[in-house]
Amino acid sequence: MSARIPLGMVGGGAGAFIGGVHRIAARMDGRFDLVAGALSSDPERARSSAEALGIARSYADFTDMAQAEAARPDGIRAVAIVTPNHLHAAPAIAFLNAGIHVICDKPMAATQAEAQAMAEAAANSTARFFLTHNYSALPLIREARALVAEGAIGRLRLVQANYLQGWLADDVQSKQAEWRTDPARAGAGALGDIATHAWQLAQFVTGETPAELSAELSSMVPNRPIDDDVRVALRYAGGARGGLWASQVAVGHENGLTLALYGSDGALHWAQETPERLIHTPKGQPPRILTRAQDRSGSFRTPPGHPEGYLEGFANLYSDIADIIAGETAHLDRVPGIAAGLSGMRFIAAAQESARANGQWVGI
Amino acid sequence: MSARIPLGMVGGGAGAFIGGVHRIAARMDGRFDLVAGALSSDPERARSSAEALGIARSYADFTDMAQAEAARPDGIRAVAIVTPNHLHAAPAIAFLNAGIHVICDKPMAATQAEAQAMAEAAANSTARFFLTHNYSALPLIREARALVAEGAIGRLRLVQANYLQGWLADDVQSKQAEWRTDPARAGAGALGDIATHAWQLAQFVTGETPAELSAELSSMVPNRPIDDDVRVALRYAGGARGGLWASQVAVGHENGLTLALYGSDGALHWAQETPERLIHTPKGQPPRILTRAQDRSGSFRTPPGHPEGYLEGFANLYSDIADIIAGETAHLDRVPGIAAGLSGMRFIAAAQESARANGQWVGI
Amino acid sequence: MSARIPLGMVGGGAGAFIGGVHRIAARMDGRFDLVAGALSSDPERARSSAEALGIARSYADFTDMAQAEAARPDGIRAVAIVTPNHLHAAPAIAFLNAGIHVICDKPMAATQAEAQAMAEAAANSTARFFLTHNYSALPLIREARALVAEGAIGRLRLVQANYLQGWLADDVQSKQAEWRTDPARAGAGALGDIATHAWQLAQFVTGETPAELSAELSSMVPNRPIDDDVRVALRYAGGARGGLWASQVAVGHENGLTLALYGSDGALHWAQETPERLIHTPKGQPPRILTRAQDRSGSFRTPPGHPEGYLEGFANLYSDIADIIAGETAHLDRVPGIAAGLSGMRFIAAAQESARANGQWVGI
Amino acid sequence: MSARIPLGMVGGGAGAFIGGVHRIAARMDGRFDLVAGALSSDPERARSSAEALGIARSYADFTDMAQAEAARPDGIRAVAIVTPNHLHAAPAIAFLNAGIHVICDKPMAATQAEAQAMAEAAANSTARFFLTHNYSALPLIREARALVAEGAIGRLRLVQANYLQGWLADDVQSKQAEWRTDPARAGAGALGDIATHAWQLAQFVTGETPAELSAELSSMVPNRPIDDDVRVALRYAGGARGGLWASQVAVGHENGLTLALYGSDGALHWAQETPERLIHTPKGQPPRILTRAQDRSGSFRTPPGHPEGYLEGFANLYSDIADIIAGETAHLDRVPGIAAGLSGMRFIAAAQESARANGQWVGI
Repeated sequence: MSARIPLGMVGGGAGAFIGGVHRIAARMDGRFDLVAGALSSDPERARSSAEALGIARSYADFTDMAQAEAARPDGIRAVAIVTPNHLHAAPAIAFLNAGIHVICDKPMAATQAEAQAMAEAAANSTARFFLTHNYSALPLIREARALVAEGAIGRLRLVQANYLQGWLADDVQSKQAEWRTDPARAGAGALGDIATHAWQLAQFVTGETPAELSAELSSMVPNRPIDDDVRVALRYAGGARGGLWASQVAVGHENGLTLALYGSDGALHWAQETPERLIHTPKGQPPRILTRAQDRSGSFRTPPGHPEGYLEGFANLYSDIADIIAGETAHLDRVPGIAAGLSGMRFIAAAQESARANGQWVGI
Repeated sequence: MSARIPLGMVGGGAGAFIGGVHRIAARMDGRFDLVAGALSSDPERARSSAEALGIARSYADFTDMAQAEAARPDGIRAVAIVTPNHLHAAPAIAFLNAGIHVICDKPMAATQAEAQAMAEAAANSTARFFLTHNYSALPLIREARALVAEGAIGRLRLVQANYLQGWLADDVQSKQAEWRTDPARAGAGALGDIATHAWQLAQFVTGETPAELSAELSSMVPNRPIDDDVRVALRYAGGARGGLWASQVAVGHENGLTLALYGSDGALHWAQETPERLIHTPKGQPPRILTRAQDRSGSFRTPPGHPEGYLEGFANLYSDIADIIAGETAHLDRVPGIAAGLSGMRFIAAAQESARANGQWVGI
Repeated sequence: MSARIPLGMVGGGAGAFIGGVHRIAARMDGRFDLVAGALSSDPERARSSAEALGIARSYADFTDMAQAEAARPDGIRAVAIVTPNHLHAAPAIAFLNAGIHVICDKPMAATQAEAQAMAEAAANSTARFFLTHNYSALPLIREARALVAEGAIGRLRLVQANYLQGWLADDVQSKQAEWRTDPARAGAGALGDIATHAWQLAQFVTGETPAELSAELSSMVPNRPIDDDVRVALRYAGGARGGLWASQVAVGHENGLTLALYGSDGALHWAQETPERLIHTPKGQPPRILTRAQDRSGSFRTPPGHPEGYLEGFANLYSDIADIIAGETAHLDRVPGIAAGLSGMRFIAAAQESARANGQWVGI
Repeated sequence: MSARIPLGMVGGGAGAFIGGVHRIAARMDGRFDLVAGALSSDPERARSSAEALGIARSYADFTDMAQAEAARPDGIRAVAIVTPNHLHAAPAIAFLNAGIHVICDKPMAATQAEAQAMAEAAANSTARFFLTHNYSALPLIREARALVAEGAIGRLRLVQANYLQGWLADDVQSKQAEWRTDPARAGAGALGDIATHAWQLAQFVTGETPAELSAELSSMVPNRPIDDDVRVALRYAGGARGGLWASQVAVGHENGLTLALYGSDGALHWAQETPERLIHTPKGQPPRILTRAQDRSGSFRTPPGHPEGYLEGFANLYSDIADIIAGETAHLDRVPGIAAGLSGMRFIAAAQESARANGQWVGI
């Protein structure tokens, strides 16, 4: 029997969204056991949340947790960090220093300085840092990446990555909305919360990073202190041009992450809300609707036509991470880590700098 | 902490499909612990499969398992039966007799006689019988049912339920195909394997059972001894008319289960491969694309736009079953059980009788 | 300069629908000049309609018109008959007898006897009879037919032709609805008005005619004296099985004519409301979205991506008819005529006979 | 009888594309008679083209034509100008000076100076100038404009207009491609040919013109001397932000003109390739699929579900122009003219200026 990997969690107490997602993802394939947590900075709430979730060991503080777990023979080998952005760096560094693998939600941090410190901690640790850019773990995205790599669309010419939501079209009052619209805790608005996903997705599939960008950040809702609409023009070193548009005021969109790529020999189209279809158009031929029947990543559990989606994408990451922790590193390159995290932080900083300079082009 | 429910499994050893689905579904929401199994009729294979899956107690025989587990203070409280159709009845009866809840894959059995015996065992047991018609546990299907019940489409006039697959368009050689195309083990071909899903789905959403049917069963692949294409005309007592078409030779379809309902005041359309959309057309108004933003069933884990699908549908059943086992029976009516199972068996028998009589109408 | 063909029209006065469609179709490619008409059985209305439409010669009576036009050196060479079904036969025969080509709307007639008389008149005439099954003149349908003929889907196994409308879901009062729901004038309801289109479309694309059928005809709206829902099961001599469903009470559908074909080697899907796409799925390969970029029929006026539709389909027929009248008969086989008309009438009669016999199978 | 309006044409000889489109559009509703033409600058070719098309009066020169027709009692009252962009101004001015209405293809001219001269000629003429931005004459676009005007999406926040084609992804050799990729004759590439349509469409539907823009123009095909990809960021005075992306190297797109609008209270989505659907999402409610069943413009000939498209859009313009020429000016505001033409030319110039200045914002 392959023993399950003991897992811890920081953040993700009652009322949180992404913590629950990580727990389901960790459970789905039976590779992890969630046994320890510092689910809240409020000790009593941490304890009651842990109890409600059946988590054996509850800690009031992530520093204590890192030390105590590292000292136990049956201690956790990995920890999921699912706190707001400004609370990623400190626990990530603590667990990396304790030799415990870190599975961190995105964006990597609230500031570039924090991200740099995390990168250094990872470089000095025996443990690894993983960043849950879950969308890039979906099977058809992995297939898209393989198709681009083998030349199915030729030389890249045009990229368009959109991430459109409408849930912040009004001045929403909710736990989810609250910290995401606070510059101090989020670092950036739509830019950090969703544009970074689009940035990473385009980078993951194309294998290319833009050389420079020009950005416009807007706040469409009166009195909102942070960006809720992000428009970025992209220039690639190889001559390709692109656009990235992320919005949280695009009424009617639920979670509209889409990617379109056009090259000298073909095109690819994908949309997160219908994740199991990838349209591949070879130049001069009709579009082909690819499904998991054509997938070569093996990143699924059921036959084509049995829809897998958001939770399964997260679970694909957890499954790959379990393999990597077990020493099977064949798929290391498809799990985002420090490099993806730093790139995302650089993207945020460059977009903010360009927007402040009225859209001036800024190098990445 | 709400303790997890100890769960067993009969069938589902290495190479099986639906067993793995049940295991993921049972794990997804953390309500069950799979601790015992009789995964194969071959004792050695049963043992090695159990070990590979981390299942603590492996049995060579489901009869032994039922008795032993019933005798343990920490014994299983529910068992998933994921064997081929002709091996549903015996274990189901054994576990029901032992007071252990049964979660049985569909169709209920290979013959009406077996199904009847199972129904009697359930009637005489303290335990319950659940049938995993998973599609009817999807949130938009539950919403569709609610809409019909509250009159959103008026009086039912037309029903069309299709279930189209193409994977048996050739004489496929695989473990999955093998028993499904053997009349002795499957009882029926596409009729039992997929048409029963369409039958139950239409019944679940409309709340009505056809009064009579006329059927044509075909075998399109040379030398196939069982039906692979099923066309059924339906008459409802209230005057509605319907059709049910199930095929496993519909090239290009992966898992094309669809439902269309038309009433005196509106229409509903749903397709399993895009499960998170339900089209509702009130008469004289434009179609409305409903998503989980409009769902009232609560049968999901993530916000709208974060696709949940096949595995989550199964998990919804497991979650409801966990509630019911825990004594919360508010949702008992949305979990298929004996009645749905018997109806499906009657549908199979009636369709076979009608087809033998050149499509003569047969009462249900 | 290629002179335009002088054209006449019977029916199609003020308030008519299909007459206007024929006029646009005749004008679109500049091949015809509408110069004579008997637009109404009411002489004054015929005259005022002709004047409003700029038609030079108005007749009170189609018999007079046939004789007078045949006698003129510049008389019409073709006539469009766009009256209700029970008024097709008499003018068609009159013009055929006068040596004037007939372009008749479908279905061919209100009864099989009338259709037979028309067929005899055509056989004895120097003029031709054309039947405006317009949908089969759309470019992607012509491409579908070519694909089937060259074996793209292999041996035919499954056919499903649907024609769903919702406009008669209530007891509508309109000129269009009035004669269509009168058995004396229409001969049949949805069966004649739309099911015949689906019948012809399937026949045109597959090149096969079912050997027998079993039908159920229903009237869903209280007190409606004619069928508004038609369900037909089809058996082909080669072993294929099919279904044809036509309804005028399918709320929410506007003009939902669709065709799905499955063979031993592939499948084709087409829908009239998105007429410029044809999905071709070769067995074991991803679906390909064909457009006019792949069309080989030449039946269009603009590049792919510039939507042509219903009127252009009609105009394609008129264009082919102009060629045929000019002596270019290469495309004679793709313009429906007597054979298609008689087949449609036989379909109507067989469906009515089967329905009266509780769905008994009836040979075609 | 309402006499047809005598119409002339400049350009549109054998091998031309848009000339044929204008001829079909003029014929479709029977409101015009094409009786005169200067179809080519080569007199013999002009004559033979006119003869082939059955055009009574052929001129070798548009100046002669304007004078001769103006002098005839039965002379043309309107002329369609369908030459390449750099040959719009001279004939337009000649016919306006002769008191003959001008129906000019877009963009208005090859340079702003030409456009200005045309505007002055129109101001001094008794005749009108019409610009065939055909897409804005489609019924659902007219409905979209009405919805925006009545507040259905609230205050405008986000605009995205795309026009994606793939036909110039290679160095195509064709009559169509040739002058369109010649800066001297076209004035601009994708910018003039298709981006102007997207600009006008957004302007027509929103009723707002951006205050400034930032543009990037690219040539993706080696050695192409003109832009084939256009990316423009838009700022509106009212605070809205937008994007316009036009490309002729977007492999796989045929004629992908799309418009998305998001306001404080709702959203609208439309795509030219499925022109008969308009998605309207009121904030907080499910999307509604509008069709011509909801249209209030009356800009069609057939019931909803009978697809009309590109040619009918053009014909809608011709029909409105016929009304206007006949003195019925109720719909004057929906037919593009001088103002739309000048705005398009200003857009082209501003985009070229911004692109030369590395994307600097330029006022409109």
